[in-house]
Amino acid sequence: MILYDTLRSGNAWKARLMAAFAGIPLERRTLSIDRGDLARPAFLDVAPLAHVPVLQLPDGSHLPESQGILFYLAQDTPWWPATPLEQARVLSWMGFEQDRHMKPLAQLRLHLALHQDADPQSALFRGYADAARAALAALDAQLARQGEQAWVATAAHPSIADVALYPYTRMAPMGGIALEPYPAIGRWLRRLEALPGYQPLFPGQPDRNLSTAEHA
Amino acid sequence: MILYDTLRSGNAWKARLMAAFAGIPLERRTLSIDRGDLARPAFLDVAPLAHVPVLQLPDGSHLPESQGILFYLAQDTPWWPATPLEQARVLSWMGFEQDRHMKPLAQLRLHLALHQDADPQSALFRGYADAARAALAALDAQLARQGEQAWVATAAHPSIADVALYPYTRMAPMGGIALEPYPAIGRWLRRLEALPGYQPLFPGQPDRNLSTAEHA
Repeated sequence: MILYDTLRSGNAWKARLMAAFAGIPLERRTLSIDRGDLARPAFLDVAPLAHVPVLQLPDGSHLPESQGILFYLAQDTPWWPATPLEQARVLSWMGFEQDRHMKPLAQLRLHLALHQDADPQSALFRGYADAARAALAALDAQLARQGEQAWVATAAHPSIADVALYPYTRMAPMGGIALEPYPAIGRWLRRLEALPGYQPLFPGQPDRNLSTAEHA
Repeated sequence: MILYDTLRSGNAWKARLMAAFAGIPLERRTLSIDRGDLARPAFLDVAPLAHVPVLQLPDGSHLPESQGILFYLAQDTPWWPATPLEQARVLSWMGFEQDRHMKPLAQLRLHLALHQDADPQSALFRGYADAARAALAALDAQLARQGEQAWVATAAHPSIADVALYPYTRMAPMGGIALEPYPAIGRWLRRLEALPGYQPLFPGQPDRNLSTAEHA
């Protein structure tokens, strides 16, 4: 399958992580926002929502949005749990990620680290920082409740909710949000990064993960 | 099952709609934000994320977040489609709703109509209006592509993606976003409202749906 992504997209990183954990080979088509690739008709034909990631499926059709892609890639793997109640809890945490976690963390990283075009003391960016810390506190509390060997929404095996919550949590320090106040998150990040198949944002260059010097 | 909600929550309306469409009786526990109910220890015990809706399940445990609740209520009904690819497309549109559609529409309604505490000409609220119109344009284009008898993410039967996208689309005019420019959305709203079991935001008082005069 082909994944349309950008070099630094956290949402596309989710899809690449899930494919790597599941052992599914993906061919990357890496686009550049700066070069205008996401506004070109050829991309809009496959991605009417003009966002990455988009997964091209074996039948040639296209699936947008990280949440749908994670679900699709996890079929017939333990990353999508077996019972409807566990599945519902996974989707609750993925809803939390889309609604309350990803947006403030992504805005802080994009504008304070990558574009460096916003004032961290502005009301808007102080609001993002407050929202980001509230989301991380909720995640930390959940991980603490779940216990040391459990995952965000499941007990015995990590799920697509862990994959969905990982990238923007991992990159929070780029946007000025320290992770030290959230010890359960720190342990969870390290456990996920120790799983077979784990891939950093820049494969082969793990130290560049949190670099602010360049963007795609 | 018991649903913790508020009188006007659009996210809780999703859960009540889904239960009504599926013929599942729900007992409402309607809380008041103004009265501080959502900050009380008794509520935080069942909803650590301090948000409604929360569904109390038959085993006494609690499921937060509309996305997980819709999935749970739709089990063994045609509102959750049968194939993994259809399921993935439903989750893609639910991710779009949580990430790009609901937040700007909910902020406009909350602050311009219910609280009346924001300036619609401020940069923040003009940004919300632009984001809301972009999301509605994407939804309208998808519905037009899908065709007159199809639904947001599925062909033959509506899915939980339609239920998730309905409330904040329906209430967009409260926040100053007219729906007339989106004809496919208008037809979709009317088809969904004609389905057996449909419930307005205020059951028994459909004309109050778009009232701005009071809030919970």
